[in-house]
This record gives sequence, C-alpha cells and structure tokens, in this order.
Amino acid sequence: MSASGVKALFFDVFGTLVDWRSGVAREAESVLKPLGFSLDWLALADAWRAQYQPAMEEVRSGRLAYTKLDVLHRQTLKGILPRFGIDELADADLNNLTLAWHRLDAWPDVQSGLSRLRRRFLIAPVSNGNTAIMCDLARRNDFRWDAILGADLARDFKPKAAVYLAAADAFGLSPSECMMCAAHGGDLRAASASGLQTAFISRPEERPGFSESIPKMQVGLSCRTTLDLATQLGA
Amino acid sequence: MSASGVKALFFDVFGTLVDWRSGVAREAESVLKPLGFSLDWLALADAWRAQYQPAMEEVRSGRLAYTKLDVLHRQTLKGILPRFGIDELADADLNNLTLAWHRLDAWPDVQSGLSRLRRRFLIAPVSNGNTAIMCDLARRNDFRWDAILGADLARDFKPKAAVYLAAADAFGLSPSECMMCAAHGGDLRAASASGLQTAFISRPEERPGFSESIPKMQVGLSCRTTLDLATQLGA
Repeated sequence: MSASGVKALFFDVFGTLVDWRSGVAREAESVLKPLGFSLDWLALADAWRAQYQPAMEEVRSGRLAYTKLDVLHRQTLKGILPRFGIDELADADLNNLTLAWHRLDAWPDVQSGLSRLRRRFLIAPVSNGNTAIMCDLARRNDFRWDAILGADLARDFKPKAAVYLAAADAFGLSPSECMMCAAHGGDLRAASASGLQTAFISRPEERPGFSESIPKMQVGLSCRTTLDLATQLGA
Repeated sequence: MSASGVKALFFDVFGTLVDWRSGVAREAESVLKPLGFSLDWLALADAWRAQYQPAMEEVRSGRLAYTKLDVLHRQTLKGILPRFGIDELADADLNNLTLAWHRLDAWPDVQSGLSRLRRRFLIAPVSNGNTAIMCDLARRNDFRWDAILGADLARDFKPKAAVYLAAADAFGLSPSECMMCAAHGGDLRAASASGLQTAFISRPEERPGFSESIPKMQVGLSCRTTLDLATQLGA
C-alpha cells in the first residue's frame, strides 16, 4: 500500500460513484415509454455509452474544439435512436433524455464513504462530465465536494494528462499529493503517468460481465468500495 | 425589484462574504509579530489590497498570461513589505503570510444566508480568488457551494465579461438566469453588461469610510445582508 503525503482525492464519477447503466435505462424508459416506445432500455444505455469514447476522441485529437459532455451526449443520442426504431423525437424530449446523465443514483456506499474521506482530504470529482452534470449528481446524492474539477476546467477529456494536472493545480498541490480513485484501469494508468497516486475501486456491478473487478495495473490501493478506501486511508 | 427566472446566484467573496481587512491584519500580526516586527497591521492590509487591481490588470490587459491570485498576492506582498520596514522575509514566512487570504472569516450572516439560498438556487462563488482560496474559505466558514466558479475557470479576472459568461455556461444557464451578488458597484455593472441580474449587498464594514453603503448604479435587488437577500428572493 502507498498513500503517503496524499492531501486530495479525485474521483471518477460514471461507474465509479454512480450507476449510469441502470439509471440511464430507467430515465430512457420514463421519457420514451409514455411516447409509445417499447425497447430494450439497458441496450439503449449500452449503445449510448458506446459512443462516449469516440465522441470525446474528437476533442482529445484536436479535431473538435472543447465541447461539453451534455452537448456530445445529445449528438450521440440522436445518432443511436434510429437503431431502436425512433426516427424522430421532439426537441424537448431529446433535451430531457439527454439530462438522464444528471439523474443517476450513487452506489450505496458512496455518500457515507465520501463523508468520511472529506474529514481528512480535499475531495473533488475529476470526471469527463461537465460541471452542470456534476452539480446535479451532487445535489441528488448528497455529495459534498470541495470543488468540481475535471473536463470543464481543463477544456479537454481524460485520459489526457492536462485534466489530471489542472485538477492538482487548482488545489495548489503537486500531482504526487493527489490520488485518483476510479474503477477503470485506463483512468488510473493515465493519472499515474502524470505523477498522481492511485486507488482502484472495484465496481463489478457497473456492467456485469464487462467491468474490471480487479485492477489490470499496479495501483497504490485496491478497494472494494469508498468505505474500504476510507478505512485503508485511516479516515 | 426584479429577480424573475433566476436559477443561480453568483457571489463576490472578498468584502462581500468575508472580512479580508481585519483578517489579513490579524494573520499578518500572527506571522510577523513573533519575528519581532511591530507595525500598523490594518495599514499593511490596506497597502496589500491596494496592489490587487494593478496586479490583475496585467492579466486583464493581456500583458501577463493568466496567473492565479495566490501567485499575484505573493509578488505584491514582497513589493510592499519594505515600506513597513521589512526588507527580508524567509520563504516559509512569505508563503505562510500569502495564505492569509485563505484564512478569513465570513460576516456573521453569511453561513445561514447561503444555507437558506441554497435550498432554492444553485450557488457558487464568482471571485477573482483562485480555487484553492475558495475551498479553504468554504471549509473554514462552512459554505456549501455547488461549484467553485470564477477566475480559474475563465483564466481571466473580473470585471472582464468572460468570467461572468464562463460561470453561467458552467451551470448550463443563460446569463439572465444568473444573479451576481456583490458589495461593489463595478462588479455588478460588469455583470449586468453581460446580461446577468444583480443584487447589491451592503458591507459598510468592509472598509469603514470607503465602502459603498448604497449601490452607485441601478441594481435588481438592494440588500442589507445575505439573509435579507434570501428573504427578498423568497428563500
């Protein structure tokens, strides 16, 4: 275990703290079912999420100026709806469904885990989600962040180094004083390459059969939940 | 009165929410007196603050790349110390004194005023202070912000329009859905020019004899305290 000198904890959000898959499926059903549509709601969530990395890659590669995730989500949603037999949707419904990502529930340990961790550390999301998404998720799930860091601040997307470095700089800390906490090895690998410490949080329930239940890389800490992280950090 | 359609409240911090003058004086005394210095602590606070606008103007004018306020504060402190008979200070003491701006107390109404306002509105500081200052002030004074917006996000300083517009955009709101709340007419004038609504909060105690006790411009709301603001907004 390695966690010496850590002053701030940065959290990945989608998958690590909140259950995007069943939440997006539930929201899709609540918006589309009253309009007469019936489809595999989890499949829609998965198809939408599958467009997430390619959409961000346009920005990371420099082909597209920084565009916040709400806008990318709306574009990718429009792109996948025809596959589910939905060829047209009113703007208001499209906007409402795009906001599904603002209405996700946290895994059961997260509210109390973050509360414990906040007593000892600065805590912030370092997510590819834009600030408005992070604020709505914090209100819904009673997260008390010190700041909302991540993509909007860096104007780029993880795993680009600029996102991790901008977050550390916002707190006036060196990268080694910050620990990235995530359920995804790619996120942790990039954070580590930028000099941050790392904690893996296992979320086998994120996408059963596809989630990383053990870290695929060397990590500072390997935790079952945010409560386990708090225990391992003595918080 | 005008406050229709407001969804988010943005707050100026130094002077409007926290008492920088007596706080900086107290911190200067606590750092410098044990080193054997004796001087007019309020005069030092005023002299330091007098360098605030000229230092930021270097950035606003484009002559200097965005530089966070902690860094500007350190430079301006070094510049004024000789005037108070302090020609040399160890780096550790200089750094510690620079952090005086992280250790300021809120006016007595602010914690409860913000708590009431948060029930009805998104709330965020839109300050020229950098994120780390805002986080430390929030922890010290129990402010619960939805996000830390302001200079670090826009990479420029108020009253440049970019700062107000970046804040509204971070919440996904139009400027007219946001209300800038400040004790200084210049801040409100610039916010209004960018399309934000405005609330003046009177702080005659900020710098007795020099503070604006009534707004020098047309404002949406004119308030005695943040509690009065909450009452006027029905929160």
